[in-house]
Amino acid sequence: MKRLVGSNQEIAALLYKEQLELSQQNLDVEEAVATIIRDVRLRGDEALRHYSSKFDRVELDHIEVDQDLIEQAFELIDKDVLTALENAKANIESYHRQQLETGFEDQPSQGVVRGQLIRPIERVGVYVPGGTAAYPSSVLMNVIPAKIAGVKEIIMITPPQETFAPAILVAAKLAGVDKMYQVGGAHGIAALAYGTETIPKVDKITGPGNIFVATAKKQVFGIVGIDMIAGPSEIGIIADETANPIYVAADLLSQAEHDILARSILVTNSQQLADAVEVEIEKQLQMLPRQAIARASIENNGRIILAKDVDSMFELMNLVAPEHLEIAMEGAYNYLDKVENAGSIFLGHYTSEPIGDYYAGTNHVLPTTATSRFSSALGVYDFIKRIQYTQYNKAAILAAEQDITNLAYAEGLQAHARAIEVRNDEY
Amino acid sequence: MKRLVGSNQEIAALLYKEQLELSQQNLDVEEAVATIIRDVRLRGDEALRHYSSKFDRVELDHIEVDQDLIEQAFELIDKDVLTALENAKANIESYHRQQLETGFEDQPSQGVVRGQLIRPIERVGVYVPGGTAAYPSSVLMNVIPAKIAGVKEIIMITPPQETFAPAILVAAKLAGVDKMYQVGGAHGIAALAYGTETIPKVDKITGPGNIFVATAKKQVFGIVGIDMIAGPSEIGIIADETANPIYVAADLLSQAEHDILARSILVTNSQQLADAVEVEIEKQLQMLPRQAIARASIENNGRIILAKDVDSMFELMNLVAPEHLEIAMEGAYNYLDKVENAGSIFLGHYTSEPIGDYYAGTNHVLPTTATSRFSSALGVYDFIKRIQYTQYNKAAILAAEQDITNLAYAEGLQAHARAIEVRNDEY
Repeated sequence: MKRLVGSNQEIAALLYKEQLELSQQNLDVEEAVATIIRDVRLRGDEALRHYSSKFDRVELDHIEVDQDLIEQAFELIDKDVLTALENAKANIESYHRQQLETGFEDQPSQGVVRGQLIRPIERVGVYVPGGTAAYPSSVLMNVIPAKIAGVKEIIMITPPQETFAPAILVAAKLAGVDKMYQVGGAHGIAALAYGTETIPKVDKITGPGNIFVATAKKQVFGIVGIDMIAGPSEIGIIADETANPIYVAADLLSQAEHDILARSILVTNSQQLADAVEVEIEKQLQMLPRQAIARASIENNGRIILAKDVDSMFELMNLVAPEHLEIAMEGAYNYLDKVENAGSIFLGHYTSEPIGDYYAGTNHVLPTTATSRFSSALGVYDFIKRIQYTQYNKAAILAAEQDITNLAYAEGLQAHARAIEVRNDEY
Repeated sequence: MKRLVGSNQEIAALLYKEQLELSQQNLDVEEAVATIIRDVRLRGDEALRHYSSKFDRVELDHIEVDQDLIEQAFELIDKDVLTALENAKANIESYHRQQLETGFEDQPSQGVVRGQLIRPIERVGVYVPGGTAAYPSSVLMNVIPAKIAGVKEIIMITPPQETFAPAILVAAKLAGVDKMYQVGGAHGIAALAYGTETIPKVDKITGPGNIFVATAKKQVFGIVGIDMIAGPSEIGIIADETANPIYVAADLLSQAEHDILARSILVTNSQQLADAVEVEIEKQLQMLPRQAIARASIENNGRIILAKDVDSMFELMNLVAPEHLEIAMEGAYNYLDKVENAGSIFLGHYTSEPIGDYYAGTNHVLPTTATSRFSSALGVYDFIKRIQYTQYNKAAILAAEQDITNLAYAEGLQAHARAIEVRNDEY
């Protein structure tokens, strides 16, 4: 891992610059995606069949995934994996249920009622990548919060496959997906955004995908809501001399194995720990089936920073605003107050980050590339709308008339003033 | 106003198509804006001075707005307008305080703690347009929710002016703006997103602006958070035979005077009311200083739809998903349950929409162009982040080991499994 020195501000600026480069989008893709979206708007299912044939080399006879396949998946799935999915589901549900909001109402003065309604988004589309990037855990993480929010219809799309991974179909069914379609890529996103003869138009699209999917989501944003455009995955670990280098190394590597663009950052005030972690990383790399990926990620994007003290470690990490933050210190819980920016925090020596990827119940769809400065993990709040309401009776509007018309006239909007004035009998 | 007939689905689809056309962005602007942003990143304040000279014809000697000017504004402002701003502020505060969230924590099983922290976004930039589009009410609406959320520093930018409207400076001060800079346009947005020698980089940008500002916000999204890209303003009114055509016409016109692109839609089950409203609109148009704008808006974009019954009126409006929704019916409050999509609702014959623009305390920054299907009024929730945390002790991680590693292996991510396994003494 490369070691960085400098002030926290300098290091954070450098890390951010590198991070942006890692998540750079390819501009050529923009135009290709725009063409595909136009085509799907125009030709609907016919365009979906065309692009499935072109990109996935599959001639789609039916676009919806057969219910029989889903039932078969429950037969085919490894029973231990099924149990694990069921337990994970229960944990994700119990965590996310705590995010449910209720509206409010007040009567700030005589004759005035104000309030806020909470309404679920009506129809949501979830994208699930195909091939080796098809993660049943992601299906649970995207669908369960929508379900808890009360979304009426959840639609999943995924690229056509020779055989779908049973765990994906099972996770979709467990989580509460209503309909599944075998269509992927930018054309799949376009179908969700605009609707086709077969696929209903949704109100919001979530879920990860490759550069075509991400670019398509960006382009249809505004027509539909989207969750976020995720960059490569990141972990930041704050560790002091109490940390176990074996654990720290293993956690850094669990991030690194995702992708050669993934990034692992260790901030420590212990030179000894830094050295020991480097030795451990090399040792553990040897044992990994995905060694090539993990090694490239660690060598290119792994960083170690030696901090002078505890406060400095937190200051730097708040500037970095990592997607995942581990605090590998004794009494880690007591340091929560120091965290301003992070997607998800893992406390103490035993809370390895993969616990959150799969099991604890917190969401694993998280803000990357320092966007945790202004955004949050996917949650129930992403699947609801807050609708304001106001009611003034006649006396209340007359009491407020002077203030409102004064402001309207000050802004040069006479029709705004008149709309109040016509309600006055003296008008 | 043009009358539309057809099924609710057909009418909604047509209205949406028209609405999209009204909010179409100009593609030529994209490239010009990208160039400006690159230049501000590169040359900082020097670029700001260059574009101020070029676009605003102002040679900026100092970029920060002088504190003296702000104090003078309190002398210059009309005292009635000051009172109205203070009263509006109090209402906006009391409404938005109800949106404050607290975190949560649970202990779902022995040795496990999970929770969610709420943290304010650290630094927010608010854009305030110049000239006649400078609305003090918008300053309150953008700044107060950020302040209530606990944002540490709120920065306002606005194009340089010969003399700033006192009400703008006063509103900024009342609402709690920390620093004001006189820089507008795409270069102003770039300065907020990337920072310059004088202007600090922010984490999120809110506030309305022209096509250059809107395009710049879209382009810096990801680097910073943004509120939304607003299209032209819209009102939808559901009115039955109990509605007063004078009030309905006045409210439609208050929307129409904003902009020739603004849109007013009346849905009613009373032919008589529809006719009476049309007569009233013509009558009231004659009295408006902004008649030309309001007339063009009404003639081009005004729409009346006759619905067969109450349910059909609500069905259509839920498909339209208007920014503002008035329910001009007796007992309007009882129809709240029927609303699925709207930015802000105004109930009954006396709750004229401008009450919400200025005074009631609900926010007037609202989702347009049917985006209320998936998004909400600006609120305190837009200025906070939710950070997850998890803590497992050793016994808890060992209890979960089997499930987690089963899922990790099923997804082919061995380093994820190893990160759990190394915590087992038997490893």
